Amino acid sequence: MSFAADIITLFPELFPGPLGASVIGRGAAQGHWSLNLVQLRDFAPDRHRSVDDTPAGGGAGMVLKPDVLAAAIDAVAHQNDPRPRLLMSPRGKPLTQARARALAAGPGVVIVCGRFEGIDERVIEARNLEEISIGDYVLAGGEVAAMVLLESVVRLIPGVLGKDESNADESFENGVLEYPQYTRPQSFEGREIPAVLTSGDHGKVEKWRREESLKLTRARRPDLLK
Amino acid sequence: MSFAADIITLFPELFPGPLGASVIGRGAAQGHWSLNLVQLRDFAPDRHRSVDDTPAGGGAGMVLKPDVLAAAIDAVAHQNDPRPRLLMSPRGKPLTQARARALAAGPGVVIVCGRFEGIDERVIEARNLEEISIGDYVLAGGEVAAMVLLESVVRLIPGVLGKDESNADESFENGVLEYPQYTRPQSFEGREIPAVLTSGDHGKVEKWRREESLKLTRARRPDLLK
Repeated sequence: MSFAADIITLFPELFPGPLGASVIGRGAAQGHWSLNLVQLRDFAPDRHRSVDDTPAGGGAGMVLKPDVLAAAIDAVAHQNDPRPRLLMSPRGKPLTQARARALAAGPGVVIVCGRFEGIDERVIEARNLEEISIGDYVLAGGEVAAMVLLESVVRLIPGVLGKDESNADESFENGVLEYPQYTRPQSFEGREIPAVLTSGDHGKVEKWRREESLKLTRARRPDLLK
Repeated sequence: MSFAADIITLFPELFPGPLGASVIGRGAAQGHWSLNLVQLRDFAPDRHRSVDDTPAGGGAGMVLKPDVLAAAIDAVAHQNDPRPRLLMSPRGKPLTQARARALAAGPGVVIVCGRFEGIDERVIEARNLEEISIGDYVLAGGEVAAMVLLESVVRLIPGVLGKDESNADESFENGVLEYPQYTRPQSFEGREIPAVLTSGDHGKVEKWRREESLKLTRARRPDLLK
């Protein structure tokens, strides 16, 4: 059983997009994960196929109707489906590397992409949607947020990254930011590769990298060290 | 002069992707912003068009070469180009709604999308790249992060959102998360729209929404209230 992602959206044609490229696309081709797109509009009951309506109490924008979204969710995930049902939303709990890793170890996800001003709160409650945020900013819709979530998760599914693409040293994996990297040429515009990295002394290289990681984290993200 | 975005990437074919849809794509069609893609590989000097090399000091993955990236940056942004040069990176300063708003008020951005294990630190210094992060997780590359950044910024460029698509009440704009939304039908699976929202009393609606926003923020993101 590989990781199965269902995405409910008004813009299924935007997928796979970046999820079709590079190691992520290769992971799908090799069967490590699969993507199923659901057009929300197909679940509108009226002949105008309307999915939204004006907000109760007034205000700008339109709100996604609860009945239409509930029907779409019920079509892809029966009541006992073990996958988390995620609603991409700036009101949600922030996505972290730890959460991405936990999701990658599970059976998959059902993702709802919002659009318009928001989604009727009652369907969030009735279908037990978990709001999740990729950061403290507002997007035009949940599609690109769903891509971010899936890209962060899929690359952690065992087998997706080759053995030469290890992620053990990456930012957040050890609670710190990644150390600076260098490659050839030895001299670039008068700037040299730090001598320790070409010394051949693996112990010293490790120590330097650990110290640089800590220094960088202290300077840029002291909150990560708390 | 409209907002001009240059993106340096190994995957220009992934763009505009989500940036071509909805209000963001309409904003480009109406001339509020423009997108120019640069294929990094075009700046590789050797006949194999190689853009990366092994990390100095050893380790997994490959590192983007400083000379190739410097040539690509110099081709799109001369020394006095006033636009910020952003490198999408998990080591960067987290993107916020306030930063998106500041960028939207400026002349545009030059964005470098990373791939592989990282980018040679010397080109970050030599070309004054500002590392910026969309969240505390790791992606396969900077492309989807660049899409997120541009989507959050472009929708704030004056004229991109219509007057019926105001963003004044959104999450983060007032330092709090957005209040719950409701729309028709009045009753959904036995759940009613809160009576205050259909009372017609605008003062009471405003008060309820303010209270719900605060309640939600206190419960989910107390850090925003500090």
